[in-house]
Amino acid sequence: MTSDPARLGAVAARDAIRAGTLDPAALMEACLARIAARDAVVRAWDFLDPAQARAARPGRGLLSGLPVGVKDVIETADMPTACASAIHAGRRTGRDAACVAALRGAGGVVPGKTATTEFAGYHPTVTRNPHNPAHTPGGSSSGSAAAVADYQVPLAIGTQTAGSVLRPAAFCGVVGFKPSFGVIDTGGLFHFSASLDTLGVFARSVADAGLGVAALSGWSALAEVRPAAPARVRLIPAPSWHLASDAGRAALMEAAGRIADAGVAVDDSPLPGDMADALAALADAQALIQPYEGRRALAWERTHHADRLSPALRAAFDAMDAVPFEDYRAARQLQSAWQHRIAALMAPDEVWLTLPAAGEAPEGTATGDPVFNRVWTLLHLPAISLPHGHGPAGLPLGVQMVGRHDATLLAHAAWLEPRLTPAPVP
Amino acid sequence: MTSDPARLGAVAARDAIRAGTLDPAALMEACLARIAARDAVVRAWDFLDPAQARAARPGRGLLSGLPVGVKDVIETADMPTACASAIHAGRRTGRDAACVAALRGAGGVVPGKTATTEFAGYHPTVTRNPHNPAHTPGGSSSGSAAAVADYQVPLAIGTQTAGSVLRPAAFCGVVGFKPSFGVIDTGGLFHFSASLDTLGVFARSVADAGLGVAALSGWSALAEVRPAAPARVRLIPAPSWHLASDAGRAALMEAAGRIADAGVAVDDSPLPGDMADALAALADAQALIQPYEGRRALAWERTHHADRLSPALRAAFDAMDAVPFEDYRAARQLQSAWQHRIAALMAPDEVWLTLPAAGEAPEGTATGDPVFNRVWTLLHLPAISLPHGHGPAGLPLGVQMVGRHDATLLAHAAWLEPRLTPAPVP
Repeated sequence: MTSDPARLGAVAARDAIRAGTLDPAALMEACLARIAARDAVVRAWDFLDPAQARAARPGRGLLSGLPVGVKDVIETADMPTACASAIHAGRRTGRDAACVAALRGAGGVVPGKTATTEFAGYHPTVTRNPHNPAHTPGGSSSGSAAAVADYQVPLAIGTQTAGSVLRPAAFCGVVGFKPSFGVIDTGGLFHFSASLDTLGVFARSVADAGLGVAALSGWSALAEVRPAAPARVRLIPAPSWHLASDAGRAALMEAAGRIADAGVAVDDSPLPGDMADALAALADAQALIQPYEGRRALAWERTHHADRLSPALRAAFDAMDAVPFEDYRAARQLQSAWQHRIAALMAPDEVWLTLPAAGEAPEGTATGDPVFNRVWTLLHLPAISLPHGHGPAGLPLGVQMVGRHDATLLAHAAWLEPRLTPAPVP
Repeated sequence: MTSDPARLGAVAARDAIRAGTLDPAALMEACLARIAARDAVVRAWDFLDPAQARAARPGRGLLSGLPVGVKDVIETADMPTACASAIHAGRRTGRDAACVAALRGAGGVVPGKTATTEFAGYHPTVTRNPHNPAHTPGGSSSGSAAAVADYQVPLAIGTQTAGSVLRPAAFCGVVGFKPSFGVIDTGGLFHFSASLDTLGVFARSVADAGLGVAALSGWSALAEVRPAAPARVRLIPAPSWHLASDAGRAALMEAAGRIADAGVAVDDSPLPGDMADALAALADAQALIQPYEGRRALAWERTHHADRLSPALRAAFDAMDAVPFEDYRAARQLQSAWQHRIAALMAPDEVWLTLPAAGEAPEGTATGDPVFNRVWTLLHLPAISLPHGHGPAGLPLGVQMVGRHDATLLAHAAWLEPRLTPAPVP
């Protein structure tokens, strides 16, 4: 398409660097140039340090010299971690989070911190959708999704507590991969919800996403994704089909059709067991656990700086004051029970296909409804969002694949990827 | 025994403060005086700020004015959090951990940070057993256990990843309560092992421990412990009976005898299902997960300051370099499978009675073997250590009770507590 190194995906850039045909410094310059050209519109970065990025002398490893954006709720030794909150503006904690130390150990270079909603919560960022700045990029990992979609970096780290990786990935037309809970260590993450917060990555292909998670987690097998057809695909319109847009629904049904055309059985029968009945309760459990745990985790901020929390966050915490611990505990027990039961309902080589979001990114700054992601995050299952064409506003659409095993899900996603319609190019 | 307010338990002191018969300032002075008198021998504190403790104007709440020690791996806005590592000497993070904000919100006052082993890991602290300074207090929550046993504070917070609450509690002759995983939010804890690290408390009675966890977690029902006999007690010599001392074994069998004398059935038949066979594998899984996750969580320290890690910690991490991610994942899956299966093997009103440690605190500084705690921590079950007399060296012994429900376990522990022999007084 172009010889601009910023357009290269992570695996391609890494291979070119290893082969000696691409200088990591040239890649970084290309990314910094793209950021400089687009930052006034996209506003994907809460903090940027081009001088430091240029000065880095990356070692060899899975990411040999690749620029990687880091969501600004993840600690960095050499940059502030402000969590998009005035309370922590300029806060430096003096060490790298586990995942940042891992990515740097693998040769990755961090040019800056990507924009997040306040504490990865409910209040929008300044970031705009690179496909149309009148629209949201989604959130809470707004900057990571937008920066990767806009060719500002080939990889970025995000976090998902409800739908904060999958949804912005879909809105921005990139791959968003949330591995199983705990695959990437959360040390040094400013945590909101200890039983839900999951680190994930944004990339422009399935293989690139696998490479990123391999480097961050130490699960080296994920670095080499080999496409493989799933044994079976289950189509999951639930729990929120009625909230999906016509274009979103059409994209999902079209993807299902292409899977069937490729000879893989697509099962659209109701969910097995009593899971269909449980989905609404599971989504409700996630929607309780997140603010209940957030209210505890941010108790210091709430006590000392309530006036500097957004009204949305304050209201969410205030609402939890009246919730008895026993209700929270019941939600956690429902989570735990279904985490176990799902293994009997979903085969290891099966994919559940559903929507990552209602449809195209809405106009404005509100980051969209995470209802399409709540259940899968709650159940700690690996999930990936793949771009699939665009909607009537010209903005990307996507599909979400949920599985039981990270490596298997990546293989299935890599199989589906070329069968889908690529996202528009910003 | 004495009118020294430092000798009062948490509930008694709180009640006296509420009744107006005890001035919180007098309680703090008494605790500070005890610390001053004993610190050269016991060395329970990594950081102490008497001026700030005196200046505190605690609000009313579950802990109205009670001094509470905080293990030095837990962030405090107004004191350093050094994790007993030269790497982080004097490190200030500018905010309170979730549990510290909660305890202060409940009226608790933090006089200082209690001594921990390096990163709550393997390298001993300077703390000595208050019953005999030639012996270890256990670890890693060494200072919290010793300070409570020595009447320096009525309550202290600790963390358990293998046996770091239960074992030092037993060695020091106090109650150590590790609630279920996640009951106390881990926000602001310098984490070592995300899937094991559990916050707990040290106190001098079961009711005091319940009060502490209620304040830290928001689970208010735990603040009022009403003794209740368990339906059944299962005696668990496994997995490490052969490692127990004669005195430890005798203490456990005597406790079981007293339970039977009180009319509660004590079942000493082998563990149900195939759990007896699984215990060794579960202990091994814990022993793999802890250093594997610690190696990832402390990647920044390992990369930049390897020379300032203890040889023991460095060796534990180095050994993990050769472990494939898949082995770690298998250990986590075993953990998850048995977390679910245990519910079918242990009734909600049943107690599993076992040893919290091999016996009396060993001579020297090595903190003892956590093998008696590994499985219960791995399974995320609530566990409590109760003092029960002493051994041939005059040092405390204890018993461990494991249950499925925190409030129920506390009720059963409060029932057993008066039937056991009190610990010696330092």
